[in-house]
Amino acid sequence: MFALHPAFPPTSHELGSLPLCQVRLQLDARYSWLVLIPRVAGAVEIEDLDAADRATLLEEVVLAGGAVRAIGRALGRPVEKLNVGQLGNLTPQLHIHVVGRRKDDAAWPGPVWGVGTAEAYDADALAAALAAAKTALGL
Amino acid sequence: MFALHPAFPPTSHELGSLPLCQVRLQLDARYSWLVLIPRVAGAVEIEDLDAADRATLLEEVVLAGGAVRAIGRALGRPVEKLNVGQLGNLTPQLHIHVVGRRKDDAAWPGPVWGVGTAEAYDADALAAALAAAKTALGL
Repeated sequence: MFALHPAFPPTSHELGSLPLCQVRLQLDARYSWLVLIPRVAGAVEIEDLDAADRATLLEEVVLAGGAVRAIGRALGRPVEKLNVGQLGNLTPQLHIHVVGRRKDDAAWPGPVWGVGTAEAYDADALAAALAAAKTALGL
Repeated sequence: MFALHPAFPPTSHELGSLPLCQVRLQLDARYSWLVLIPRVAGAVEIEDLDAADRATLLEEVVLAGGAVRAIGRALGRPVEKLNVGQLGNLTPQLHIHVVGRRKDDAAWPGPVWGVGTAEAYDADALAAALAAAKTALGL
């Protein structure tokens, strides 16, 4: 039985579910950033998914990339590069980060993970980001 | 026509090619680390690959994960966690990092990219890593 790890809710907002993954907006206004969590109990590594789920996963990563670009446009900060990462060194439940990067962002050209402190969204920006992401994801 | 970006040869050693990707050993003895470069001209993001190549890509990522574990065993430092990253903020040609992590490694629990300076392999360890990776990859 799939259950979301308790580390996710305090740092991200649920957008809904695609065929494989729950999709969440990372609550860090510095970046257009989605997190995909395959709804497969016990999965830690990509190799823990079967081949069909792995194929679905990468399609959902591509879809999330489009949604990240949509968030960036909605917030007036168009995405210049996508970064995709599956780390899980701190939160073991399998999850994939899809992050929109810009040359003027807080961590460029390094990775975003572990750099500085998340900045809260203001209410208008959060609503715009959620709406843009949901439309792009068909949720 | 696919051509390898010149940033790769100074920092990695070619192991051979899978159906989609050229596979290279990252020349940093701190980590068991492979880099996959899809042999598709002009690809920058995962979305630049067609759906068939995307499915192949994730299978090659899983295969590379097994090879990274094999390198870790060969060097007496078994891998405890896999990290997969597609960044490309500095080198635009699409490439995917598959990195074996340990709680005692130089960057744990943060990401490896941009942390410290690569350490050269000594000749024996390099030969052992290359042999283990080639066997695991069937190359």
